[in-house]
Amino acid sequence: MNKKAIILFSGGLDSTTCLAFAKAEGFLCFALSFVYGQKHHIEVERAKVIAEKYGVVEHKILSLPLSEICGSSLIDSHLEVQDHQEAKSIPNTYVPARNTIFLSFALAWGEAIGANHLFLGANYMDYSGYPDCRPEYLHAFENVARLATKVGVENGQQFKIHTPLLQMSKGQIIREGVRLGVDYSQTISCYRADTHGRACGTCDSCVYRKKGFKEAEVLDPTHYCS
Amino acid sequence: MNKKAIILFSGGLDSTTCLAFAKAEGFLCFALSFVYGQKHHIEVERAKVIAEKYGVVEHKILSLPLSEICGSSLIDSHLEVQDHQEAKSIPNTYVPARNTIFLSFALAWGEAIGANHLFLGANYMDYSGYPDCRPEYLHAFENVARLATKVGVENGQQFKIHTPLLQMSKGQIIREGVRLGVDYSQTISCYRADTHGRACGTCDSCVYRKKGFKEAEVLDPTHYCS
Repeated sequence: MNKKAIILFSGGLDSTTCLAFAKAEGFLCFALSFVYGQKHHIEVERAKVIAEKYGVVEHKILSLPLSEICGSSLIDSHLEVQDHQEAKSIPNTYVPARNTIFLSFALAWGEAIGANHLFLGANYMDYSGYPDCRPEYLHAFENVARLATKVGVENGQQFKIHTPLLQMSKGQIIREGVRLGVDYSQTISCYRADTHGRACGTCDSCVYRKKGFKEAEVLDPTHYCS
Repeated sequence: MNKKAIILFSGGLDSTTCLAFAKAEGFLCFALSFVYGQKHHIEVERAKVIAEKYGVVEHKILSLPLSEICGSSLIDSHLEVQDHQEAKSIPNTYVPARNTIFLSFALAWGEAIGANHLFLGANYMDYSGYPDCRPEYLHAFENVARLATKVGVENGQQFKIHTPLLQMSKGQIIREGVRLGVDYSQTISCYRADTHGRACGTCDSCVYRKKGFKEAEVLDPTHYCS
């Protein structure tokens, strides 16, 4: 029997590559997406289409009340998403504890369905400096997962967090995706994406995406407004 | 200025004692409760009353889609809450990754409002064997919290998880609560509590509660059906 895996799946470039990777490795894929007040909620619509295309066993979309407890320009209508800046500070698109919350739900679902493998498209080369994408954070969460569950205590089952893109540049990710046959035209990266999926071209996420396609020497199928 | 603390607050015996403890220690208390499909949702109504009595700065009640992803007799109408058994296996009231999810939201809210102290009424003396109440788990989550946040990376702020009841017996918890002036008549422990707050008297939680009052030699104000 194939091994089951939960794929944290936003419908973006990284998580789509991650899903393609897990599928190619032979995992039975269960996709998990979240509606958490993000302005670019079009990503979830695209996630549905992509997940279906990849024949995931199930695609779960959960609503989380993140905007009730924390601010971020990604979810707060009073804060504007910043353009990309070369400065080193973490931008205002940062959402407090987002990956910790997402991984916690992946862990819960994983335990419920007997999926010990959790895939996350985290990357800390061409990224916005979010602390919960760093290797030391991810190791720490894996340790939590090791200790948190009933199947761990009673059956010795352990959870592995797979982050195949962690050390890749955006260009390397895209080359890997192309090798795996990923169609990036459906994926949404832009933090300001409109309901048609058009990208701003200037936010952090767009800048890294553009850079990636250029570096990979692959035609960028994104519809940028600028 | 007083230090801010998030109190994970179910309205039960342990978390109410924990709130009283944090208040007595001089923390500015922010209470965080969850509606997650629990059958004994009356606990959240009681939590509102108790939080107000303790003058918390804010009481946030969040709805989480836990029943969409995992089974537990606590949240699944097709599973029956078991009576207490002396056997060592973890009972079917266990909810996968519950404390990891709850702590993740506490961390997010904590970062948002500048509260570095998170209080949890976890106890692993008179308890059901849930893995996410054990000291090694809690240390692992504290390590995640240390690495997960922007305020940690940029300002060196660290989060401390306080578990003042961790090593106490249920009797010791009640004695501590009585010393702090806690009125246990409002608190709900029973996993099968009805909408009037009446307790079954035979589930795990009731059995530990009864044992605690007996051990503490304090009159148990609970209305048990059996």
